This record gives sequence, C-alpha cells and structure tokens, in this order.
Amino acid sequence: MDADIENLNAIFYPKSVAIIGASREKGKIGNNIVENLLNGGFNGRIYPINLSGEKVLGIRAYKNIKDVPEEVDLAVIAVPAKITPQVMEECVSKGVYGAIIVSAGFSEIGLEGKKLEEEVLKVARKGGLRIIGPNCQGIINMSANLFAWFGAIPKIKGSVAFITQSGALGGGLISWANEENIGLFNIVVSLGNKCDVDESDLLQYFANEDTIKCLTIYMESVKNGRKFLETARKVSQVKPIVALKAGRSPVGAKAAASHTGAIATSDQIFDSALKQFGVVRAKSIEEMVVYSIALSAGPYARGKNIAIITNAGGPGVIAADECYELGLNLNPFSPATNAKLKELLPSHSSIGNPIDITGDPSPERFKVALEAVLGDDDVDGVVVIVIGPLKGGEEVGKIIYDAKKIYKKPIVVCWLSGEYAGEAPRKLQTEGIPVFKTPEGAVHAMYSLVRYGLYLKVRTEK
Amino acid sequence: MDADIENLNAIFYPKSVAIIGASREKGKIGNNIVENLLNGGFNGRIYPINLSGEKVLGIRAYKNIKDVPEEVDLAVIAVPAKITPQVMEECVSKGVYGAIIVSAGFSEIGLEGKKLEEEVLKVARKGGLRIIGPNCQGIINMSANLFAWFGAIPKIKGSVAFITQSGALGGGLISWANEENIGLFNIVVSLGNKCDVDESDLLQYFANEDTIKCLTIYMESVKNGRKFLETARKVSQVKPIVALKAGRSPVGAKAAASHTGAIATSDQIFDSALKQFGVVRAKSIEEMVVYSIALSAGPYARGKNIAIITNAGGPGVIAADECYELGLNLNPFSPATNAKLKELLPSHSSIGNPIDITGDPSPERFKVALEAVLGDDDVDGVVVIVIGPLKGGEEVGKIIYDAKKIYKKPIVVCWLSGEYAGEAPRKLQTEGIPVFKTPEGAVHAMYSLVRYGLYLKVRTEK
Repeated sequence: MDADIENLNAIFYPKSVAIIGASREKGKIGNNIVENLLNGGFNGRIYPINLSGEKVLGIRAYKNIKDVPEEVDLAVIAVPAKITPQVMEECVSKGVYGAIIVSAGFSEIGLEGKKLEEEVLKVARKGGLRIIGPNCQGIINMSANLFAWFGAIPKIKGSVAFITQSGALGGGLISWANEENIGLFNIVVSLGNKCDVDESDLLQYFANEDTIKCLTIYMESVKNGRKFLETARKVSQVKPIVALKAGRSPVGAKAAASHTGAIATSDQIFDSALKQFGVVRAKSIEEMVVYSIALSAGPYARGKNIAIITNAGGPGVIAADECYELGLNLNPFSPATNAKLKELLPSHSSIGNPIDITGDPSPERFKVALEAVLGDDDVDGVVVIVIGPLKGGEEVGKIIYDAKKIYKKPIVVCWLSGEYAGEAPRKLQTEGIPVFKTPEGAVHAMYSLVRYGLYLKVRTEK
Repeated sequence: MDADIENLNAIFYPKSVAIIGASREKGKIGNNIVENLLNGGFNGRIYPINLSGEKVLGIRAYKNIKDVPEEVDLAVIAVPAKITPQVMEECVSKGVYGAIIVSAGFSEIGLEGKKLEEEVLKVARKGGLRIIGPNCQGIINMSANLFAWFGAIPKIKGSVAFITQSGALGGGLISWANEENIGLFNIVVSLGNKCDVDESDLLQYFANEDTIKCLTIYMESVKNGRKFLETARKVSQVKPIVALKAGRSPVGAKAAASHTGAIATSDQIFDSALKQFGVVRAKSIEEMVVYSIALSAGPYARGKNIAIITNAGGPGVIAADECYELGLNLNPFSPATNAKLKELLPSHSSIGNPIDITGDPSPERFKVALEAVLGDDDVDGVVVIVIGPLKGGEEVGKIIYDAKKIYKKPIVVCWLSGEYAGEAPRKLQTEGIPVFKTPEGAVHAMYSLVRYGLYLKVRTEK
C-alpha cells in the first residue's frame, strides 16, 4: 500500500475524529456534523473543538486540537476560511493524518481565496496530511459508521461509492434513496475544490474496498485528465465506474467554471476516452442512478442478446423500442426455447421477443417464461415487466429471485403499479435485483450491465 | 354538437350504468368494476346484470339488461367474447347509448376474434350505440365520479385526459400518481382494440371539456392517420396534446402488431406530421408524464429564453446542459436585471445564467432573484432549483407561488431533498406549479411549455 492510500485509510476508517468549529447551536454545520457522527453510531472517539471549550451534544470539547489527550486520525474543519491555515498548522503539530475542510471561501470565490487554499495545502504537504475539500459537504463511510457530513445521511446501506463534485447532489440523492427506501450508497465523498485528494486518488483507493461494487462519479472538471484516465483504465478492470460529467454544453461549462473555479475539459475528447477505458457514462442524474443500481447488483451480461418477459403488451413495446435505441438485440429464441414456451404457456400468450404472458397471469407463467429464456444459451439477460393489479406479487418476486440465483444471468425488473405489489419490489431490490418504475429504466439498467460486461469480456479475451 | 359527440356524452356522463357480467366473487373483473363505481361515489344508478340475478355488493341485480325498469345510458360488458354479440343485441333493444367492452378474445387473438368483433360492431351501428374497446380496461371520468374501470383508481383529481392503447399503462400510471400523492388524471380511457371509438373521436370530444387542460395519448397504432392528424391540428389550437407513440423501432413495431393486431404506422412520417400540427411528442413514459404535468399547469412560454435560479451549483450546471440539449436559450440578462441582482444578492452569489444564490440561502434570496428575472422582458420562463437541507422551505414555496401569480410566466421547480422540504413541494404541485425531483425533469417540463407556447404564438401571429 503506498503512503497516499495509507493516509486515506485514516480518513475513511479513523479511530478518532475531531470536529474543529463544533457548535452547540442547532442548525449550524459544526453542530450537525457532530450530531450525524453520534447518530450514525461511530464507535471511535469524537472530539468537538471550539473556542469556548463547552460540551457539544453532551460530549466533552476542547479549545484546541492540541489539547486533546489522545491521538486524532481525522479532523473535520468547519471554521472561517481565513483561520483555516492556522487550524491546519495545529492539526499538523498534533499528527493528524487527514482533514476534511467543509468551510467555503477558498478558490471558488477568486484570487484571494485561492491564495488561502494554497497556504492550507502547503501546510498539509509539510505535515504529510491529506485534505478533502475545501468547500465540501464531508464524507460518509457506512462500513465504518462514519458520517462526517452535514445534511441528510443514508438510512439503508448500499454498495455504491459516490464521488461528487457537488455536495448538494450527494445530499439530494441520499434524500431520494431514503424516500424510496432503498440502499444506494455505502460511501459518499464530497470533493469540493479538491485542492489535494481528487477523483483519481479515490477511484484507486475504493477499487480495493470490498464493500463497494460500483464507483460512481459526478464531475464538472477533471483535476488531472491523464491521471484520471490512467486510473480509470486500471480500476475499471476490477470494478465498474459510472461517470456523469456535467458542463458538456457551452452554457453548462460556463456555469461549471463559475461554480467551482475549475476549467472544464473538452467534452468530446473526454467522452471517447471514457468509452475506451470502460467507463459507463451517464447523460443525466437519472441514468447515473439507474446504472449505479444495476452495476452494484450485477452480474454483468456476457453479450447483448436480451429477452423481455411482460404481462402487459404496451410496456413491452416501449421496452422493445428502448432496447433498439440502445443497441440491445431482441433476437428470436431458439426453436427449442420456442417449443418449450408454446408447450407451457396458455395459447393466448404472445410468444415472440417480448414474450407477452398477458394480463392477470398466474405467477407460474413468469416462472415458465423465465426458465425457458434463461436456459437458452443465446440469451444474455432478461428484462421482466410486471404490471399490477396482480395476484401473487410476492410469489412473482420469489420466482425472479430464484431464477437469478440458479442461472447467474442479469435480470432487471420494471414493476409498475407498486400500489398492488406490496413489499415484493422492495424485497427484490434488497435482494440485489434492480427494480424500476418504468420499462425504460429497466432497459437502461440492462444496457449498463451489457456495456460493462462486454468491456470486461473483450479485455479478457484479448 | 354532432351525433357522435352526443353519444360520447352518455358514456362519460351517464345517468345510469349497467355492468353486464357483474360478479359476486371478489377479485373478478365484473366484481371490481361494481366496487370501483360504488367507491368512487357515482351518483347515478348502478345495475349489476348477471345470470343468477343475485345481489352484487349489496345492490339489486337483474338477469338481463332488458329487465332493468329504467333507462340505461351506459353498459359495461364483462362477459365471454362469444356471447358479447348477443348481449349487445339486448343493449340495443334497451336503447343503451354506449358500451364499454372490457372482455378480451376479439381481433387481438386472430381471425376468429376479428369476426366476433365485426359482428359486435354491426349490431352497435344498427342501434346507434357507440363502443369503447373491446379488450380494454374501461374509463374513468373524475368530474362525473365515474370509475367504470378495473384496477387502481386515482386518489387525487388532476386535469389530464389520458387516452391509452395500453390499459395496463393507464393502471400503472394511476398507481404511480397515487404513490407520489399527486393529481395527474381527470379522465382515463383505455382504448383497447378501438373497433369504434378511436383516439380522434376522443380528442375532439375532450377538446371541449372544461376540466381538461392537457390531452395525453399513448398509442401503438393510429386507426385512421388522416383523421387523426386533421383532428390533432384542430384540437391543438385549443388544448395541448402530448403523444407517446410506441413501436417506433422495428422490434417495437413487431411487438405492437402482436399486441393489438394493428399495423404500425411509419414512424418518421408520423413524427414530422405531429410536429407540424403542434403535438408535443414524448419519447418515453417519463417524458409523457413530465410534459402532461407541465402543460396541464401552464402558462405556456412566449419564447425560449429561460432563466435558471439555483441554490446549488452542480444541479444548475446539469440544468444548463439540458437546456442547451433541448434548444432552450440561457441568455445573459439585461444590464438592468444584472444591476438589480448585484445590488440585492450577497457578493458570493454567482450572477450569471444560471444564477447561483448558493447553499443554505435565506428564502428572501429566491424572491429577489425570481422577481428580477421575471420582471425582465427577455425572460420567458424560469427553472427554479431548490436543494435542501434548507431553512424556510414553506416560505420558498410561497415565494414561488406568489411570483407565478404576479408575473404570469411559466415557472417549473426541481426540488431535490424532499426529506427536508416538508409539505412545500407537494403544496406547490397542488397549486399548479410543476415540481420534479431532478433538474432534467424540470427542464423537460419547461421545454414542453416552450414548444407548445411557440406553436400557439406562430399560429396566432400568422
């Protein structure tokens, strides 16, 4: 393990955390972070640091990090920008490994702030201390019960590491997942101005993190394009990377520049490089989320021949259109598969691809169709569309779950009419089967599994 | 009013409904429809008809529609296909105006079914009776408390009329709106095989319906292309039409043919005709819903110059990209507007387009920014992005609502972090301000308001 990654370990798995600028006042950032650390069940030591030295949320505070009687691995800094260099000096004296600077007022505000940021970085380099931020929202690592973050925190653990240049987007998606009752993220890092730790460092570090199945990046600029692409190339051989790069249009790039102070990268060059290196690029927040859900669930497809099973014609047609649009094949099935389907499904079913098992089917029909197509060597993945009202939703869920376990091919589900579905769709999602509310969502999910699966396959077979 | 529309009136505003094939058995279609009619508060008379003549859900039943002592306006038919012609004969003798045939087993199953369907239609024509279906899920008209429909029914009234060739999609979207707690549809018609009443008849009829602000169509085939386009041309001068046409790809078209038995229309020709006649075409279920929400809220934009106001940089950049993609202009503001913004917003705000009022703003900043850009004659519509955690969410909601009322320009909102928003986003939605969870959703909504607004403007100015 190189020195860089060792320090990142102290940031993501600290034994002790100091919050410099910890506040007793509810609603303040320096209060919310202590609160999140406490509520999240962090079982290392927590040291609030503030000028008064008065307890914060019942925890003993210190006036200066240097007064803390034990070692401090990680410092979260929420003090005004202009005193941050001084605070950093103190962290260095204390032997802190990493700092998360949430304070704003650095390079994003112009020249004066840029100077401060450079000063802060100089101090850190001197002390061998790594920085996340400044101007960020913090980090979350659910495997360490670490919520060094202000704002909403995830209720359910997922297996995505989300590296985001927009802290607000991180917070927004955490809230969204909470509302939907799904586990999406395990790790969230708000990069802020990324004066030190950048997307490439984190990609490399999270590549070895067992809890993480998918690395998802939202970026407006790349700090070091060559380093990023080289890292992405290496990492995507081990784990899927999903990237949403905003600022792809002239107006967007201008907005991005005024947001982060960073100069945007030429979109076209970046795009083709990402493709070449196996990164699955999302063009919208929704695509980013869909791809992340699918790729963290797996397995990846070994080809692009897809089967659609539906109990409603219309949504099947919509899914077929979307497959075509994304270059997924809906081939006819083998004669053997067709014979099986004809034998076992009622005569009014439509046996093509999509297979329409028609409205109000018995769960058994889903089973028959799933087993027939999954057993067909020329089918690489299945999109199942379930539209209620439907008797036996729970049973349909179980059939899908069992089929995936036996056949080890990707299955994604569109379950519309959640009202009637009871807990079945949510249960499936928890069990690692991606479930979406539209046929398009399910097909996009399958697309990412095909995209990345084919990338891995080509690389393996080379 | 021509004769056709008069009969449609008896279908959508009946004084009495007979359910032929009404069942006592819970879960059967013929039971669920009676249940929905009762629960929906239909205050006309309900006559269950079944072979036993035994009460259904406590209501007196008759063995034959001819035994009903009073007039029957509408018959909902849920009997096996092969006895439907006979039942239709009885309806004609009874003087029924309209029939909704939910039974399947007609042209969608092949030649034999097609013959039955032709027979049914012949009987109807003879008696001057209009048919919706066969092979459909029924109709809903919330203004008449009429739920002649099996499956989920809407909990909250909207102002969209949804005409759908896929009943399952209608049911699915009703459930979706219920889960989201929003009012989307006022009317839903499942067209089924549309042996008689088709999308064009309904467009024409609903054009005069005051409760309806947007006509939304899901179709896989068009029954009579020339009639449809001619109707769309006329109607879209009065009300916006949103159309999702599935089967646009070869595989999709094949699937559509096997679903409804109808031959798909050439997609390219259809597409350009729709554009010419002011129909806003959706390419996915999600776009269809987003456009419908926006166009039923209005007002339409008078140009394509948009302003974005955001309290988070990243989502603002994403929205800017999406505007560019869809051809919406993000022009710089006039010097006067810029001066106003500079005077009234804090110095660390980013005053461009997007306007970034930065994280954790006071509600007042939204007000200042909104009033400045809405007062600018060169701004045709505003996309507001609100990302929590945010103090004063309710107040932000009120500011947006008031601004729309005063300036009468379209405002659409992306409100991410619903967790923190309390009731504000939902309240806004209820008050006619479209609210979405992603910046892309909000920009798509604005796109539809611009698209239709410009169509109307060009037509008016010609």
